[in-house]
Amino acid sequence: TLPLSLICGPCQMESREHALEMASAIKEIADSLNMGVVFKTSFDKANRTSLTSARGLGMEKALPVFAEIKETLGMPVLTDVHEPDQCAAIAEVVDVLQIPAFLCRQTDLLVAAAKTGRVVNVKKGQFLAPWDMRNVVAKLVNSGNANVLQTERGASFGYNTLVSDMRALPIMAQNGAPVIFDATHSVQQPGGQGTSSGGQREFVPVLARAAAAVGVAGVFIETHQDPDKAPSDGPNMVPLHALKDLLKTLQALDGIAKAAV
Amino acid sequence: TLPLSLICGPCQMESREHALEMASAIKEIADSLNMGVVFKTSFDKANRTSLTSARGLGMEKALPVFAEIKETLGMPVLTDVHEPDQCAAIAEVVDVLQIPAFLCRQTDLLVAAAKTGRVVNVKKGQFLAPWDMRNVVAKLVNSGNANVLQTERGASFGYNTLVSDMRALPIMAQNGAPVIFDATHSVQQPGGQGTSSGGQREFVPVLARAAAAVGVAGVFIETHQDPDKAPSDGPNMVPLHALKDLLKTLQALDGIAKAAV
Amino acid sequence: TLPLSLICGPCQMESREHALEMASAIKEIADSLNMGVVFKTSFDKANRTSLTSARGLGMEKALPVFAEIKETLGMPVLTDVHEPDQCAAIAEVVDVLQIPAFLCRQTDLLVAAAKTGRVVNVKKGQFLAPWDMRNVVAKLVNSGNANVLQTERGASFGYNTLVSDMRALPIMAQNGAPVIFDATHSVQQPGGQGTSSGGQREFVPVLARAAAAVGVAGVFIETHQDPDKAPSDGPNMVPLHALKDLLKTLQALDGIAKAAV
Amino acid sequence: TLPLSLICGPCQMESREHALEMASAIKEIADSLNMGVVFKTSFDKANRTSLTSARGLGMEKALPVFAEIKETLGMPVLTDVHEPDQCAAIAEVVDVLQIPAFLCRQTDLLVAAAKTGRVVNVKKGQFLAPWDMRNVVAKLVNSGNANVLQTERGASFGYNTLVSDMRALPIMAQNGAPVIFDATHSVQQPGGQGTSSGGQREFVPVLARAAAAVGVAGVFIETHQDPDKAPSDGPNMVPLHALKDLLKTLQALDGIAKAAV
Repeated sequence: TLPLSLICGPCQMESREHALEMASAIKEIADSLNMGVVFKTSFDKANRTSLTSARGLGMEKALPVFAEIKETLGMPVLTDVHEPDQCAAIAEVVDVLQIPAFLCRQTDLLVAAAKTGRVVNVKKGQFLAPWDMRNVVAKLVNSGNANVLQTERGASFGYNTLVSDMRALPIMAQNGAPVIFDATHSVQQPGGQGTSSGGQREFVPVLARAAAAVGVAGVFIETHQDPDKAPSDGPNMVPLHALKDLLKTLQALDGIAKAAV
Repeated sequence: TLPLSLICGPCQMESREHALEMASAIKEIADSLNMGVVFKTSFDKANRTSLTSARGLGMEKALPVFAEIKETLGMPVLTDVHEPDQCAAIAEVVDVLQIPAFLCRQTDLLVAAAKTGRVVNVKKGQFLAPWDMRNVVAKLVNSGNANVLQTERGASFGYNTLVSDMRALPIMAQNGAPVIFDATHSVQQPGGQGTSSGGQREFVPVLARAAAAVGVAGVFIETHQDPDKAPSDGPNMVPLHALKDLLKTLQALDGIAKAAV
Repeated sequence: TLPLSLICGPCQMESREHALEMASAIKEIADSLNMGVVFKTSFDKANRTSLTSARGLGMEKALPVFAEIKETLGMPVLTDVHEPDQCAAIAEVVDVLQIPAFLCRQTDLLVAAAKTGRVVNVKKGQFLAPWDMRNVVAKLVNSGNANVLQTERGASFGYNTLVSDMRALPIMAQNGAPVIFDATHSVQQPGGQGTSSGGQREFVPVLARAAAAVGVAGVFIETHQDPDKAPSDGPNMVPLHALKDLLKTLQALDGIAKAAV
Repeated sequence: TLPLSLICGPCQMESREHALEMASAIKEIADSLNMGVVFKTSFDKANRTSLTSARGLGMEKALPVFAEIKETLGMPVLTDVHEPDQCAAIAEVVDVLQIPAFLCRQTDLLVAAAKTGRVVNVKKGQFLAPWDMRNVVAKLVNSGNANVLQTERGASFGYNTLVSDMRALPIMAQNGAPVIFDATHSVQQPGGQGTSSGGQREFVPVLARAAAAVGVAGVFIETHQDPDKAPSDGPNMVPLHALKDLLKTLQALDGIAKAAV
């Protein structure tokens, strides 16, 4: 088993400059820890709570920025896809196509993403049992693409709350696809702030540490140099200045977890 | 407040003949009870548990059948939409566009459905609190379409289980849009049968009666002349022969509920 | 099947005078509706959220009041028991011994209550699946007492919230013991107000109507002439002046439910 | 902050010989790891699923065995209490009185346990939010006893399932009382085997590791030399031969967690 990897970036692509700065800063941190890293950011927040929330740069403006990040930083990039039509164009630039949790059972989207041949990272729906990811992963693999990652991001627990069942990690691992733990969205409070989702940033390290100690292929952590001013997911993004210390702890836990398994 | 209406049909359109037969039988039952009815069936099951499950006739073959049902039976029809692109073509024939529960937060789909001007029935996500339907309904209304129905179909409750919180019905009603109770999918056991979802047909009347006594604009009930042979949702469809008695009871409960409010 | 019965009273016995007034008022309402009624009140709130919350009159002062209510009003009485030792003395006066939900698996308490020969009403734990009440009822019956009632009062649903699964009513009924729906505690928000439990009085009629339409032996409703001044469960007690109209609606629903089964 | 401690033993006291053997073996393991340990076993399983399940040796026979373990092994001992009456007698011998989760809101039991002056370990109810343990701990402290431990053992999650919310650990820690993670009962499947509770032994290390990485004062792990033959909780006890390796891993995780906080 490989050491812990990282999927990291700001929730949404705010501008070319911001994306490049964040990617560069994250790359530097990961390199200093000798940790594999994929840069994540969204070009479109397609399921915001409210119609008036900011949705992001859009695909046309975002793809050249992803290309530039790859070229200048030599860093693989990940973004989420929402419609089957988008997959081919995005796959020309982006290394990892991510299926959002709400869409993890949309067959056409899964098939279209799989057919690109790119790595597909599928998030587990908040409504899905961990053992049912087997069927989701099979839709991808049976479409001819075995390069699949699966990401735990919390399960519905009453109203406006998610809970992270750490048992899900080894259960999902039985599917054969590497398991990522998304510490950012697992602390989301869906709809918990009226017209936007809330979050509990202080619990990101708590859950990330728990997952690393259980043993995962990677962690997914959104970060921002000033989360409180971010256009989305601010309440649950880790401040950039706190990232390195958190990752160091996770690496140490990962070493013990993988020696013990 | 109007008396209880019905949205009813087989889960998926199996063939022209089957759809016409079912629509005709349902129309006859509803007419005999003087109950308003919309025929519901799906042309595509886009989020089946498994890649190999039957998906239905497809849009091209289904639209003429919907047109024929409307013309020959004078019955409004409802079907679900999955991609923004589909909405305009479907709206040329179909009276009510339904947004599936998993997709209830996909802004583009909601906007595209709303822009057709047709009635939009949006199902509440299994992951959504009832008070958060306010934001979903607002996305539709603020896109210029006030003809909105909202449907309760159960909330995630642990793994492979949904629970119907009857408090959701009056909470959702505060949004202003009429509330439908989907008694069929509320008894689904998501993923509960390995490669397909299970269900508990015996609880459809239980939950439908509870909802009618609380007070709803309509009930959504899938039916089939032989549920055990249906290609999808067989475990939770009501047999056609049992439909009339159930509706009679629901009408009686509805009368009391609406007199009491 | 018998028509709907009622278990009703103020949450706790505040004084002899208050108990007698409430019992008399409730008796008059039930009699006017020809509805069987048991007077319920607690002499000790043994599991209050906080140490400083009011606990009630205590057993010694309460038992003569129960005796007086029975004698002067000819009304059976119910109260909850907390320790095996209390059961015999309470059973000398009280007709129905109630096992609190948190204690529904305490074998010694169940056996002691059963041995008195009195009717035992056991509440389903918030942590218990409806099919597991089979084991709870069996503990009572196998202790030689078949006079058992079982009461649904909501299941844990995330934090500080209960949900009422209406499927629980027919599932529990399969045990053979009559099923009561507790509409008061089902709308409790456990711990939801810091140092006391909150509640949502406006949903008592919603859930009571749902349960009556499903079909139950009885409903459990706490009432108070001035709930906002009650020492416990004020937020979820029905005002006395609203009780009669609610019961009329429930009777009508019950008639339809029991004709339909 | 102190390094990780251990509460450990077989679920129930099966015999004097068995208890002594288990205590001795556990002591040897803990000593070899330089880990503080308290021996735990129950003299009475007062809330078994079924009336016919084995309940244990009983208090009279068990107390001398606890005394012998303390004397011969120099090991502190813990057992659970069920009735206020029992507390004083048990406290004469036993070092830590444990309040079962179902009983965590029973005021009289909490007060009686607190009054003994012994350490009280109160388990968090499956129905309780982590922030509501504040009230439970306050009942003990305000009864004059500040020697309180609080134990997380899972929260109700749908039917027959518990989930361990790792956020509960730091939330509970804010109460000031040291937090223990009970890895054994957190993997219980309440009522999940018809007339007894099931469990998932394979997840004990998973959850214990997660908790240690988050940071706790101690872990609670039940063990048995042959769990499949144990009279209770067999499905979720760790085999004695696997205990040492698990504890080593937990110690390593604890070191990192406590350095990082």
